Amino acid sequence: MRLSEIRIAGFGGQGVILAASIIGRAAAIFQGGYATMTQSFGPEARGGSSSAQVILSTEPILYPYVSQADVLVVMSQEAYTRFSPQLKPGGILITEHELVHIDKMPSGIRVYGVPATRLAEELGRKVVLNIVMVGFFGAVTNLLDPDALRKAVADSVPPALQKLNLQAFDKGFEYGDLLLHKLAESGEAESVVSMEAEH
Amino acid sequence: MRLSEIRIAGFGGQGVILAASIIGRAAAIFQGGYATMTQSFGPEARGGSSSAQVILSTEPILYPYVSQADVLVVMSQEAYTRFSPQLKPGGILITEHELVHIDKMPSGIRVYGVPATRLAEELGRKVVLNIVMVGFFGAVTNLLDPDALRKAVADSVPPALQKLNLQAFDKGFEYGDLLLHKLAESGEAESVVSMEAEH
Repeated sequence: MRLSEIRIAGFGGQGVILAASIIGRAAAIFQGGYATMTQSFGPEARGGSSSAQVILSTEPILYPYVSQADVLVVMSQEAYTRFSPQLKPGGILITEHELVHIDKMPSGIRVYGVPATRLAEELGRKVVLNIVMVGFFGAVTNLLDPDALRKAVADSVPPALQKLNLQAFDKGFEYGDLLLHKLAESGEAESVVSMEAEH
Repeated sequence: MRLSEIRIAGFGGQGVILAASIIGRAAAIFQGGYATMTQSFGPEARGGSSSAQVILSTEPILYPYVSQADVLVVMSQEAYTRFSPQLKPGGILITEHELVHIDKMPSGIRVYGVPATRLAEELGRKVVLNIVMVGFFGAVTNLLDPDALRKAVADSVPPALQKLNLQAFDKGFEYGDLLLHKLAESGEAESVVSMEAEH
């Protein structure tokens, strides 16, 4: 059974593919699940955009394409414009809050924003913004075991960069966790609303 | 028409996925082709191994799985052991020369080795070994336009790391180019042989 279909998109150099790969790997680590991560390149690859699809499943996946995503993670305005119409009704939209401006909010979608670039810069390395996004994704979707995601991060980066990347993961996760708590307090967590983190 | 099926494998943190993604992107950049990059995760993902499949095609790809690869790039002994039996007769095996020991040479396969980790260390950053491998792959397979590959490298890494990554690409490419010239001089370039670079 397909558990979830996820699309991650942004521009080249943001680490879209590594983020997608970590999510796929996490599904298989502790939970005994299966996942595929697929990236397709056609004429549009000539721009600098980058996108990947991840499918989480309870069994091996024979057809790895996503038509409509349950979860869309966008790290650029272009990615938002291109892919947000393909989000399923009731789906989750996760944005890099300072890079994506939501103009026409699709109805029936929950939106969670995180200033991942800024949080990464606070760690001294902007390049880990993708891992901040993965942590935030883990907290707000609750699709995967946080320890499995964390282990997938550690397994996917060079040993010398593990500490930095785990800090980035934790930072994103904590930001998401705090956001959910704030929403729960305000009674909005269970409702379908458009919201972004305060900062 | 499928032009080539490529598998890249190693251990986590070596940047297998980024290398595969760059090759896929290059196919679409100048050559107007199509490509998919797929990574599958199942129970074996619990070890730290990492592998990805890339398909280069003249048209959109409906079934993105590779059964037997035309080109296999391995960056660990485990990856070599696991995937070398699935290389097509007449295929090309590319190894990280210092990490992979070829015990039983499959017959009818051309082998090219590059000390990618050492070349990356010469640039001061071991993490770019995957990009050295991409450059070497470009030179010895001649499957893709070198400029397209180079542009795909630049498009796939953060701006601050472009220079380093392009140096890594050039280093791998030059090593492969030199190797081919040596083989041509010795009259072995067109024959099916097992060979590795001198160093």
